[in-house]
Amino acid sequence: MAKDFSTREENYSKWYNDIVQRAGLAESSAVRGCMVIKPYGYAIWEKMQAALDKMFKDTGHSNAYFPLFIPKSFFSKEADHVEGFAKECAVVTHYRLKNDPEGKGVVVDGDAKLEEELVIRPTSETIIWDTYRQWIQSYRDLPILVNQWANVVRWEMRTRMFLRTAEFLWQEGHTAHATEQEALDETYQMLDVYADFAENFMAIPVLKGVKSENERFAGAVETFCIEALMQDGKALQAGTSHFLGQNFAKAFDVKFASKEGKLEHVWATSWGVSTRLVGALIMAHSDDNGLVLPPKLAPIQTVIVPIYKNNTQYEAVLAKANEIKEALQEKGILVKLDDRDTHKPGWKFNEYEFKGVPVRLAIGPRDVENGTVEMARRDTLEKEIVSIDGVEEKVGALLAEIQENLYRKALAFRTENTRKADSWDEFKQILDEHGGFIEAHWDGTAETEQHIKEETKATIRCIPLDENKETGKCVYSGKPSERRVVFARAY
Amino acid sequence: MAKDFSTREENYSKWYNDIVQRAGLAESSAVRGCMVIKPYGYAIWEKMQAALDKMFKDTGHSNAYFPLFIPKSFFSKEADHVEGFAKECAVVTHYRLKNDPEGKGVVVDGDAKLEEELVIRPTSETIIWDTYRQWIQSYRDLPILVNQWANVVRWEMRTRMFLRTAEFLWQEGHTAHATEQEALDETYQMLDVYADFAENFMAIPVLKGVKSENERFAGAVETFCIEALMQDGKALQAGTSHFLGQNFAKAFDVKFASKEGKLEHVWATSWGVSTRLVGALIMAHSDDNGLVLPPKLAPIQTVIVPIYKNNTQYEAVLAKANEIKEALQEKGILVKLDDRDTHKPGWKFNEYEFKGVPVRLAIGPRDVENGTVEMARRDTLEKEIVSIDGVEEKVGALLAEIQENLYRKALAFRTENTRKADSWDEFKQILDEHGGFIEAHWDGTAETEQHIKEETKATIRCIPLDENKETGKCVYSGKPSERRVVFARAY
Repeated sequence: MAKDFSTREENYSKWYNDIVQRAGLAESSAVRGCMVIKPYGYAIWEKMQAALDKMFKDTGHSNAYFPLFIPKSFFSKEADHVEGFAKECAVVTHYRLKNDPEGKGVVVDGDAKLEEELVIRPTSETIIWDTYRQWIQSYRDLPILVNQWANVVRWEMRTRMFLRTAEFLWQEGHTAHATEQEALDETYQMLDVYADFAENFMAIPVLKGVKSENERFAGAVETFCIEALMQDGKALQAGTSHFLGQNFAKAFDVKFASKEGKLEHVWATSWGVSTRLVGALIMAHSDDNGLVLPPKLAPIQTVIVPIYKNNTQYEAVLAKANEIKEALQEKGILVKLDDRDTHKPGWKFNEYEFKGVPVRLAIGPRDVENGTVEMARRDTLEKEIVSIDGVEEKVGALLAEIQENLYRKALAFRTENTRKADSWDEFKQILDEHGGFIEAHWDGTAETEQHIKEETKATIRCIPLDENKETGKCVYSGKPSERRVVFARAY
Repeated sequence: MAKDFSTREENYSKWYNDIVQRAGLAESSAVRGCMVIKPYGYAIWEKMQAALDKMFKDTGHSNAYFPLFIPKSFFSKEADHVEGFAKECAVVTHYRLKNDPEGKGVVVDGDAKLEEELVIRPTSETIIWDTYRQWIQSYRDLPILVNQWANVVRWEMRTRMFLRTAEFLWQEGHTAHATEQEALDETYQMLDVYADFAENFMAIPVLKGVKSENERFAGAVETFCIEALMQDGKALQAGTSHFLGQNFAKAFDVKFASKEGKLEHVWATSWGVSTRLVGALIMAHSDDNGLVLPPKLAPIQTVIVPIYKNNTQYEAVLAKANEIKEALQEKGILVKLDDRDTHKPGWKFNEYEFKGVPVRLAIGPRDVENGTVEMARRDTLEKEIVSIDGVEEKVGALLAEIQENLYRKALAFRTENTRKADSWDEFKQILDEHGGFIEAHWDGTAETEQHIKEETKATIRCIPLDENKETGKCVYSGKPSERRVVFARAY
């Protein structure tokens, strides 16, 4: 089945790219580092957006939209931010093209040079905090709870579809608060929203933790994150929530009059997830037969394939298939009936299996006679014959079971691939033999983290927020440590 | 009431800007020509998006996403397109900034110059048709029915919030077909979708027609449009649907093998509406008391304002207000209960009136006693006392009535402001005294249209698709004409 594409064992990286392309999720474009998100891939992103947007609104946030362009000078206003973000980015220098005097198409019009160059937003803290200065005068104007769905550009040298592209789609929340505690509460709340989404929609268990200084967002006081484990044993940062303190308020002079009438700088958070999540989704669940999607994010939750040899059969089978389709739709199940006669049932079976459709129903003339249908699940590839009577209940239950099973499987995989290392040799051995998450003691210094990264390519994914404190000695330096942190090689 | 802002009579243009700003819809940003869409304005756009997106999907379209950047050379491939779009646009020439050697922030890194400049998309025909070449081999791959929600940039010199901004948000549909007829059918279908949306959601009557050559989209064979009339008598193009023929297929070499095995160029359409519609919405219905929103696009359909003097009253009033809120929510009405004690009821009345909330319910201690509530409608400013019992039915009916009333009013306004001109003097007189739509004969030449534009600033808004043919003489040249066309000064 589908043997013209790589298995995970043969070539994990090629397996990933094959799925992205053959399942019709995305492809590279004529512009270096930018991808085209194809309809099926975009439909997954739309389902992610809808679920997240509802969670944001349920927690009191509104959407807004800020400019794509950021004046170059804005980046210099927050000292750390400039180091992290002003470097690899797309710069607009001119605002006009003209006909080539030599007749070869169009050329940049040298007369139309901008006085100040504009940077395509790599993230929007600067332009947003420049705006918030106008919005905030008094404590009555706070909190501001705003989110933006947008495209951003970071000029990455090595790109990979969904995981790292020059342009990508994301959401970025930017909130403003009167007190430090309120901003911290928001930071944690949004981290919880992300973890909830990852586990209950994406069916991917995640570690919640705080980043070490090396991995912190440029301009943040603390960066919190959710970290997931992929099937090749590499970690993937799936979302971040930043406590920005008063850094951006100070950089952009945003103050408010408190209830007591004092003028104070505003406290801030920002938080985001991106189309990278589609990459995480692919890598977490898919197998050597193609994409596997959790039902809650599947654009098609159930496909119905009719099987017939002649016109009489076709009519009887299709009538029944349509009945089933309607029954499923009434239950709110996203169902597709593929009645094209340009493709054979076997081809369709492969196609939807490859595209990760959670449940497939096949119905032929004998099924119509018997009042039955074949129900196949994508996660385990198991099939059973069920009665058409009440099939919508069975499909509904099966979709829920698949959602849970994918999570259980991913959790079991992570548990198997989370190991404690108590010596440097053990650390390196685990990394080379298994990969995965390594819980190890660390002396808390950026130097040690840097040494470990240089020697092994592993980084601290996070310092978990759980309460499992335990003293020990740093696996690298032998210096005292208060708790284990989580290392891994990462995407 | 709200006398610190302009009336339509005093200064129409300032009245518009005052509404945009004071109702919290948008504001200008630090980047020339780019606006910030504030939460309340963005919520209106989100409601428009949701309604349109459903209509697109119901007619078989899927969403996808294509790169923000277009290689400069792409614009030269379609001869007309380059004239129309490659000129006033944002050009990315570099991909890196570096620290200023003189220590003044960051500067463009001269070493990071792109080999080929990238243009920020002003519209995406070129990059999309470059992509479709990969997607289309056979008639089996057709039709392609794709839409994109995206930001685009056109470096406009004179900008105006929502109506004309350098960056704006829009959707652009791009479809590919095997036959000319199918592409034409799609062009008309999407024009109808737009007209349906304008009339049934925005409550704005529109003329459907075809553009003259002067006003045609650069690269199209025919441009169809919907045209609306604003309260100052100026027209506003509210949406366009283009029949592109085989122009882009030829420019980007997109061919398919037909059923008969012949290699043929693909037929194309594109169609779009933008955040400009928010501007149209404001200008079509609002009055000297602020914004007026049709209920179907109002982020808040009903606001409840509690009135009380002391704590005992507060509790009784709020309990009842909450009951009403729940009853309305159960009916699917978007309701806000403003129970803030930082603002007085009178302030709230003004605020929600200015923000165009269609229905306001006010409830005080006496209402609680009597089982009544005051129900006020924003369109006519009429109030009545109604029983709390069954209030959700009354509000639901009133919202429907307001939606219809706004359309009726706008239609009556358009009817009053559509006049026939049969001589050049009459034409100019109508334009100067009334504005509005002028139905006049035209000789069909671009020259005449250009002369009329130069002398009066009026352009042909469209050649209506209706069947009202009537021969006559061109209002300007006196040459024979087959039918009247519609002129107006326009946004």
